[in-house]
Parts: sequence; C-alpha cells; structure tokens
Amino acid sequence: MDKKENLKIDALFLGPKSENAKFFKETLLDFVNEHIYWRRDFHPEDESIISIHEQNERDFKETENKIQEVLRELSSKLKTTSMPWHSPRYLGHMNADILMPSIIGYVTAMLYNPNNVAYEASTATSPMELEVGQDFVKLMGFDPAKAWGHICTDGSIANIEGLWYARNICSIPHAVKAVKPELVEGKTDWELSNMKINEILNLADKVKDIWDDVRDHSVRGTGVIPGQLGKWIVPQSKHYSWVKSCDIMGIGLNNVIDIQVNDNFRMDIDVLEKTILELAGQKIPVLGVVGVIGSTEEGAVDEMHKIVALREKLEKEHGISFYIHADAAYGGYTRAIFLDEEYNFMPLKTLKERLHHENILKNDVDWPCESVYSAYKALSEVNSITIDPHKMGYVPYSAGGIVVRDKRMLDAISFFAAYVFEKGSDAPALLGSYIMEGSKAGATAAAVWTAHRVIPLNISGYGRLIGASIEGGHRFYQKLESIYELDIDGTAVRLEALCKPDFNIVDFAFNIKGNTDLEKMNALNKELYDLSSYASGPVLKNDFITSNTSFAHEDYGDAPFVLAGKLGIPKEEWDNVHSLRVMRACILTPYFMFDKVSKDYWHNYVESMRHKLKEILPKYL
Amino acid sequence: MDKKENLKIDALFLGPKSENAKFFKETLLDFVNEHIYWRRDFHPEDESIISIHEQNERDFKETENKIQEVLRELSSKLKTTSMPWHSPRYLGHMNADILMPSIIGYVTAMLYNPNNVAYEASTATSPMELEVGQDFVKLMGFDPAKAWGHICTDGSIANIEGLWYARNICSIPHAVKAVKPELVEGKTDWELSNMKINEILNLADKVKDIWDDVRDHSVRGTGVIPGQLGKWIVPQSKHYSWVKSCDIMGIGLNNVIDIQVNDNFRMDIDVLEKTILELAGQKIPVLGVVGVIGSTEEGAVDEMHKIVALREKLEKEHGISFYIHADAAYGGYTRAIFLDEEYNFMPLKTLKERLHHENILKNDVDWPCESVYSAYKALSEVNSITIDPHKMGYVPYSAGGIVVRDKRMLDAISFFAAYVFEKGSDAPALLGSYIMEGSKAGATAAAVWTAHRVIPLNISGYGRLIGASIEGGHRFYQKLESIYELDIDGTAVRLEALCKPDFNIVDFAFNIKGNTDLEKMNALNKELYDLSSYASGPVLKNDFITSNTSFAHEDYGDAPFVLAGKLGIPKEEWDNVHSLRVMRACILTPYFMFDKVSKDYWHNYVESMRHKLKEILPKYL
Repeated sequence: MDKKENLKIDALFLGPKSENAKFFKETLLDFVNEHIYWRRDFHPEDESIISIHEQNERDFKETENKIQEVLRELSSKLKTTSMPWHSPRYLGHMNADILMPSIIGYVTAMLYNPNNVAYEASTATSPMELEVGQDFVKLMGFDPAKAWGHICTDGSIANIEGLWYARNICSIPHAVKAVKPELVEGKTDWELSNMKINEILNLADKVKDIWDDVRDHSVRGTGVIPGQLGKWIVPQSKHYSWVKSCDIMGIGLNNVIDIQVNDNFRMDIDVLEKTILELAGQKIPVLGVVGVIGSTEEGAVDEMHKIVALREKLEKEHGISFYIHADAAYGGYTRAIFLDEEYNFMPLKTLKERLHHENILKNDVDWPCESVYSAYKALSEVNSITIDPHKMGYVPYSAGGIVVRDKRMLDAISFFAAYVFEKGSDAPALLGSYIMEGSKAGATAAAVWTAHRVIPLNISGYGRLIGASIEGGHRFYQKLESIYELDIDGTAVRLEALCKPDFNIVDFAFNIKGNTDLEKMNALNKELYDLSSYASGPVLKNDFITSNTSFAHEDYGDAPFVLAGKLGIPKEEWDNVHSLRVMRACILTPYFMFDKVSKDYWHNYVESMRHKLKEILPKYL
Repeated sequence: MDKKENLKIDALFLGPKSENAKFFKETLLDFVNEHIYWRRDFHPEDESIISIHEQNERDFKETENKIQEVLRELSSKLKTTSMPWHSPRYLGHMNADILMPSIIGYVTAMLYNPNNVAYEASTATSPMELEVGQDFVKLMGFDPAKAWGHICTDGSIANIEGLWYARNICSIPHAVKAVKPELVEGKTDWELSNMKINEILNLADKVKDIWDDVRDHSVRGTGVIPGQLGKWIVPQSKHYSWVKSCDIMGIGLNNVIDIQVNDNFRMDIDVLEKTILELAGQKIPVLGVVGVIGSTEEGAVDEMHKIVALREKLEKEHGISFYIHADAAYGGYTRAIFLDEEYNFMPLKTLKERLHHENILKNDVDWPCESVYSAYKALSEVNSITIDPHKMGYVPYSAGGIVVRDKRMLDAISFFAAYVFEKGSDAPALLGSYIMEGSKAGATAAAVWTAHRVIPLNISGYGRLIGASIEGGHRFYQKLESIYELDIDGTAVRLEALCKPDFNIVDFAFNIKGNTDLEKMNALNKELYDLSSYASGPVLKNDFITSNTSFAHEDYGDAPFVLAGKLGIPKEEWDNVHSLRVMRACILTPYFMFDKVSKDYWHNYVESMRHKLKEILPKYL
C-alpha cells in the first residue's frame, strides 16, 4: 500500500519553459556519472584500452568532430520542425510533456543497454517489466495471483497480441476434440465454439500431458480453419490497428464486424446484441468483442459493463460466449483515478467527494458520469486489456502494454510446450517466447517502472495527473460551448463541439452562420486546421497547434450528423456529402487545470482563431 | 558518395574504461541544453508557468526527492547485476559497447519525443526513418528507385512482417482469379501458387482500379485458406521467431519445414531441392524459403546464392517458384564490408586486398571464404531482408529493420486501398498503416540515422568496425584451436571449437580426455557456463562472462556430432543422448583486434577457465 502523497505535478516535468532545467540536468548527469564510474570499477586492475595519446591524434579528433557535426544536424532538424508538446499551446494529438523521471530512467538504463528478450540479458530490467505487469494487474482490478502483463512496443502490437490470445484459446476445444474427444463428449461444434474462456482454460489444464499434440491440432498447428473461429466484433470507433490485426492473424477482414456507435460515439449495445443473435441464428460463432476505452478520435468510453453483462446474459440464455478485449491503449491509465490508496475501486459518491475535496477536479467539472464510471469498473471482468504507458502514462515512446486476466492463457501462444516461470525465478528465462516481440529495450521497462514508482497508480498519483488533463479537457469544452458564435468583421461564425467528452478529447467545428453547404464547411475547417498545424510550415511560430479528423458515413453511419446538424447542415446535405471534417484537441497538458493558464491560453486561442478566420473567410463568402 | 574516411573506432564508443567520458558528457549536455533553450524560445512572450516560489515549496521539493530516490534505486539495480558489455571480458551474447553518437542522438530526439507512426507527429524523424530505409536499400544492393525499408522493434517483428508480405502477395493470383479470371486465364491453381513474385506484382498493377475487391478475395479478406499457400521452409538453424511467425500469421506450425544443416551449420541446399521437388510431386506449393545470414547460435551464413540459383532453376525446369526472405537480423550490416565507397559490391580479390592493405583484417585472418562472399552478394536477389541495427549496427535497443526489394509489395499489406507516398511528400502521412507497428519512437530513427551518418555503410565505415569484430572472432577461434588440451592438476581437459566461423560467433566445448559419457561432458560445460554467467550471482566480480547453448538432435539432426566426435564421444553415445551443450561466444567487441588486448585477455581467459576447471573437475573424475 502506498500512503497518500502530496505529489506536485509541476515537479514531474521539465516544464513548458524548462523551468525545472537545473534539477533535470543535475539529476541526469549524476546518473550518467554513476554509469561512467561503474565501467571503471569493473575489474579496476584492467588497464585503459584507449590512451590519451591516441585521443589526441588527428584521426581521433576528426572522428569526434564528425560525431558532433552529425549531432548538430540532428538537433537542428529536431528544433526546426518538432511539435511543441511541452506547451499548452499544443492541443492536438495524444501528446504533452513527458515525465522527467522516465526520461532520466530511460537514459540511465540505456547506458547499460539491457535487452528484455531474455533474463540473462536484462537481469535488472526484466524483473522491472514483470513488476510493471503486476502494476497493470492491480490497476485493472485483476487477481495478482492469476493475472499477468508486460510491456510491448505500442497499442497496435498489444491489440494484435490480444487477438492472438483470443484466436488460439478459442481453437483449443476443437483441438481437444481431435486429440482426446472424451473430454468434450457430447458437445457440438457450435458448443465448442461457444465455451467460456475460463472453461477452455480448465479444459487445457486437463491436457497438459499431451499439450504438444493439442497444440498441433489447434490453430497454431493447423493454421486458420475458415468458419471455425467466427467473427471479430469491434465498434465503428475502433483504431485501424484492428483491421491490421485481423489481416495479420489470418482471420480476414471479411470476418470483422463494425458495430454502429451512438451519439456519444460509444458502441450501441443493442445493435451489438442484435448482431450476435443474428449470427447465432446462422450458426456463425463470435470469436470476440472489443470495447474501446478512450477512442482515438473522440475519447469515447464504450460501456464495458454492458458488454460484460451482455455476455453473461447470452451465456445463460443462449449458450453463446466469446472473448472480450478492452482496447484501453488511450484510456487505461485513467482507471487510477477510481482507485484509493489501497487500490480498491471507490464507490462513485466517495470518488466524487475526493475528486473535489482534494482539488483533483474543480467543482464546476462534473466527471465521471455513471456510464464512464461503470465502464472502468467492469474492466476487471474482461479477458485482456491494451494499455499504453506512452499515452496517459506520460512516458516517452515507445511503451505500450497488455495485461491478461488469467496467466494460463500464455500456454496458448507461448513457444515452449508448457508455460513455466522457471523454478523459483520471478522472471521467465526467455520472455521473447511468450510474447510477439523478441529483443526489446530494457530501458523502456526502466522508464515505465520509474514512472510507476514515483507516481502510484491510484487517485493520489496518476489520478491527480490525469485528473488535471480531464479538467483541462472539460474546461476547454465548456469554453467552446460558451461561445455560440464569433463575429468576424460582421460575419457570424458558429462553433460547436461534437459531444460532451467522456475523457479529455474535444472535437469541434466552425461554420459560417446560415451556410448549409457541407463541403464548404469542411473546406473551411480543413483550412483552419492547415493554418494550425505543420501543414502551413514549421510550427515554431504558430500560435496554436491542433489536430483534425474526418468522419465518413462509411465508417460511422449517421453519428457525425449530430454535429453537422447543430451547425445548421440539413440532413439531406449530410446524406449527400457523408463526410465531416472536425478539429480534434487532445488535452493532455496538465496546465489547463490552473485558472490563470486556462484563462490566458483560452483568450489567446480565441484570438488566434479569430485572426485565422479573418484571413481566410473572404473566400468562403 | 562518401569519401574514404579514416574513422577511428575507438572514438565511437564511451570505451571499456569510459575513456571518452569527457567528450560524451560535454556533447550530451550541449544537446540537452539546446532542447532546454528551444522550449524557452517557443513563444518567448509566454510567461513561465512554474514559479521559483512554487519550486521552493515543501511539496515540490518532496516530489523532487522522490524522483531522485527512485532513480537511485534504479541505478543501484542496474549497477548490481548488469552485464559488462563494454568490456572485452564479456564474450557472450550479441552485445558489446554501443555507439556514443547513437546514444546522444537517441537522448536528443527523445526530449522532443517524436512518434514515427505519423508524419505529423515526427516531422523531423519520419524522414530520417525513410533515409535509413534507403541506407538499407543501398547496403543490400537493391534498386533505390524501387525498394524501400523501415525500422521496426526488432528482428522478430521484421520476420513476422516478411512472412506477412509473402503470405499476402502469394494469395493475390488466387484473388484475381476470383475477381477478374480473364487476367489469369488458363492458369491452374498450381500455376497460380507458383507465379514469380515479380509477375504477381505486375498482375496486381493491372487490378489497381478494383483493388478493394481483389483484397477482399485475397487472404486479407477471406482469412487463411488451408492448402492454398503451402509450406514455409526454414533451415534448422532458424531463430525461434519463425515458429512464432507461422503461428501468428495463421499458417500453422504443421506447415513449417526445417531443412537439415550441414557440418558448417548452413542449410543443406541438396536437401532443400529434394524437399521442394517431393512437395511438388504431391502438388503442395512452397510459400517461401528463409535463408539465415548469421544464425543466432552459430553465426552461420546460409548459401543464399545457391537458394537464389535453385529458385531460378526450379522456375525454368519445373514451373516452381516461391518467395525468398533473408533473415539477416544478425549478419545484415556485415554486407558493408563488401561495398566500396561508391557502394559497389567489390570483386573478392579487390576486397581481400583492401581488407589487408588497410588493416581492416590482419594478414593471418583469412575471411571471407567464397561461400560467405557469394551469399552476401546474392542478398540483392531476395524479396525481403531482416536487418537489426541493434545487433551489428551497435545501436542501443530496440532497433530492428526490414527492407523489401519492390515497394509495390506494400499494397499487399497496407491498410489503405492503394499505396501512395502522398503528393510530393517524401514520407507517408501514416507510416503505421504500412507496417505492423503503430506508435514508435522517432528517437530510434534518430539513433540509427546518426550512426549511419557518422559511419558509412561501406568498407571504410561499418566495414572497418565489423571487420574488427570478425578479426576478434577469428583470433579467438585460432587461439582455441591452438590449445589441444589443458593440464589441470594432471588431468587432461580437451577443448574444441564447433567449426570455423562464417562470421564472429565461436561455439566450443570442453571434455575430460578419455571421457565418453556425453551427459557428463554436458554437465561439465553447463557448470563452466554457470560459473561464467549471471547464474553464479551478479557478474560484477566475474573474470569472464560468456553464453551457452544446447544442440538437440530434434532441432539439428546429427550436425552437432561433428563437435562431440572431435571431443571423443562415440557415435552410439550421441545417438543415445542426442543433445550437446556448448559455450557460445559472440565476439562483438572491436578491441580483440588489437594485439595487446587480444593477448592479455586471451591469457586471462585461459587462466580463468583453468581456475574454474580446477574448482569443479574433482566431481567429474
């Protein structure tokens, strides 16, 4: 148990103006020196190999000069075009300043260059990766004795791995039928395709003595057998990595079903139920359902509690079951807000009291709603979860992660015949044989581990940090809502947000009052975005930087019309154009939390938009 | 064209005794400062957000203290157990010191935290990744106008991606038959499964207008269709990631065929030919063949020229064709040695002259043999190649890579309907939609780019560096060979190497003279390894650190008997035990190149082994 802490968010980052530069440099240098002297202390009796004489020779100096010249070029390129993610003027992608402890932790570990593929190559950082895995377990409310997790490159790889688990586990009953039919006697193929995940893992336990044989008859051995596994169901708001995943896993894009999202851009659970029952009517099984916790474009939080409840109901009433994966790449860390210092999921009333009493959220921000609260609570019921430290963990790239509810699942994908953490060891000898990747930077594990040790995964740690981001997002939303229209030299320009954010992303669009031409409106928003992004040249001199996205009917059905309609676009026009361009602001900066910052930057933001509109508006009139 | 340079290898690394610490720290700090002031120069009119007053408050200081405490713990853990890869005393895994310019390049870029998933999030480092891709193209002798490459986490991911290309491309002819049969009129299914890769890509060009439809009928749409794709052929010396790959891709482990290796641990090409013809006799197609350039356990270089020639012959004589992937994760960078300053592959005679005249190899090391030379030359003929900067590129983890011969191949795996580098842009807007991973550290691209700009990928750049490693490996081998036996208190202990190394890995084993008990010999070598590794506790105080491996008949057939036999184990005993434990030394350190170092460390090495043998020998007598 971590005790309650008075963590100062400001002390965690280098700062928008490098305010913490002195601390950063001193600390960094301290640990660089530790490494430097460590090298000298390994067999101190060994002589230096590179002599001072040699270091003073011309070729040596020239090589040094070349190193510096190339690094100058690198630094110049970085400075010229990089995004100012450290500044609250950046309200675009899922980026903000990153944690000083993680940067220094990364550099410190990189000097030792551990490789977490194998324990032997990472005796210090392999155990850290497993500790981080256990942190994820605690964060998600899984049973620490049964669950496990690890770090991977990113959310895409974690999603692919989630599907790998689902696909391989769900083929086990069919393999057992081939190898030892008496264990599944009387079960039809339909029933085998609808066994509960826990039942399958219990069944797998019974065939560990003939596991190689079972494996050879499962999808791992035979390859994909069409029709046996069934459909993979995702919401329309899914990340595109799910399409990649189904290609890679040999499932096929034709076996992916997108479920319509509602006006809040959350998966419509009624449509989900109807779809599954219709498939069952044709005896087509469902391999799994993905719920998104924090969609990439909207920050929407799927009602995971309803997906879990639906599975229970379908199991009882129809004998239908499936795998559930939560894609919480973006929103996963936010579960920390809901946990008290003993990692218990707090009742909603207690949570809201603490959020406001402890100034994690100011009183005018009402978050979370019941639906978001319940969705986060239900994460402990799903089979696997993607969670990215390099998003809401504020850790540098690349650091993704996956956590699974039942570590027996590993047998379904691991290279070795039967999963063992070797005799008494905390770490597997060869992590690379239990996951998708092989060689992987131990420095990443060190960076995430350092972040988690400094900032506990509960309300007084990450809860406080992410709370500041949510507060910023909601304030931005409130400010947008407070402006009905802007007067630009006599032309009224209206401004509307897509919907109240579930999290910290605000999508919004501008339209000239009275304009009913959707293509014109899209062009206006596109041009405003271009003027607020790299598209108009290096962002060095830009006042505000944001991102944008486009909602097509093909991907989202009529959900985007909710915003187009508010901005005066008739339904017929939407039906005609079927595409909506919006600005997209992910508010990860923790500084919008502060009244003064929020006020100043908001004022500047409106002035900047006013200025840009003034510049481009004539051509749209 | 890079001009010939007098690159000093010693100036590229921090050094075994941190000899270059001063240069390292000054340079690092310079670029850290550049970043710090860059933040301040972004909208200099914006006020600081974190005040000095606040920085002096108690909670702020406590947060700083906590950061330092956690980092101290991290540093302590790293120092206690990390491998001394910087020292020539480490002769184990594929590790040595890493390049200073890459470390500093990584740190510099990490401060800006670019994400190469999308150009918008990495305006500086996305172009660097593509430049690195073009460096790989040049290194492999592909046509720069037609080929492309990129960085990925590691060799496992690159191998999976290689198989992804092969699988998806080889299903296109079948998809075209379903969608527009007139284009493949008269071709049988067997012929469709045996089209040349270039023919398939030409065919794909003809259906770009109906590409979505073709895609939906290819493996991407339908999922894997058993039997259509055929077998995936690898040598016995393959990395285990190939087994993972075939699981992940839905091909199935039962469709992987291992080809026997010969006494040099290279794939036996006669067996390969026989296998393919036997499959053809049963009308089972071959999806692809993998050749390994630098096997993980032995450093063996498969005869890629013979694989390429075999494909040509089978195409002409039998209408059989297949995809070829080179797994050059380990050995890929070594192709730099063969290239002159204009990136032409040199004639063998010219190469050997330059190697010795320019002291890249000393005269007593005869490398490369004709077979290794021809194998490297033939890399320009394969369809895709895995190459890991974090191995022979001496770049910190994680940095893998893949390069493909024909960029039209991207259409087969890319998320978007048709592959385009957007209008006039050098970089794709969304790299994540053309590769397996999504978010990925731009800092990795910066680290590899910096390495390549400092050290050209030709004989006078990486050639010189890797030459030093090869020289070290061969010297170590020569020294081993020069000792027929050691006298340990009157007991003769024999020492033999597995085979003359193709590259820089030396496998070897000890046996008590006259012992014919293979299990006893294996136990002795295992114990020697334990005493030379983390297994006997933190390696801080160890004299020499090495790695080990085990060759089982199940994986290698009788190839390992070549060593067991030399050490006096009878064939019947091998047939009985079928497993051989050996020491494995990857000589990546460039310092064995130097006479004095090589002499000192070799002497110490022998003394250390003598000492360890003395300690454990009694129980084996």
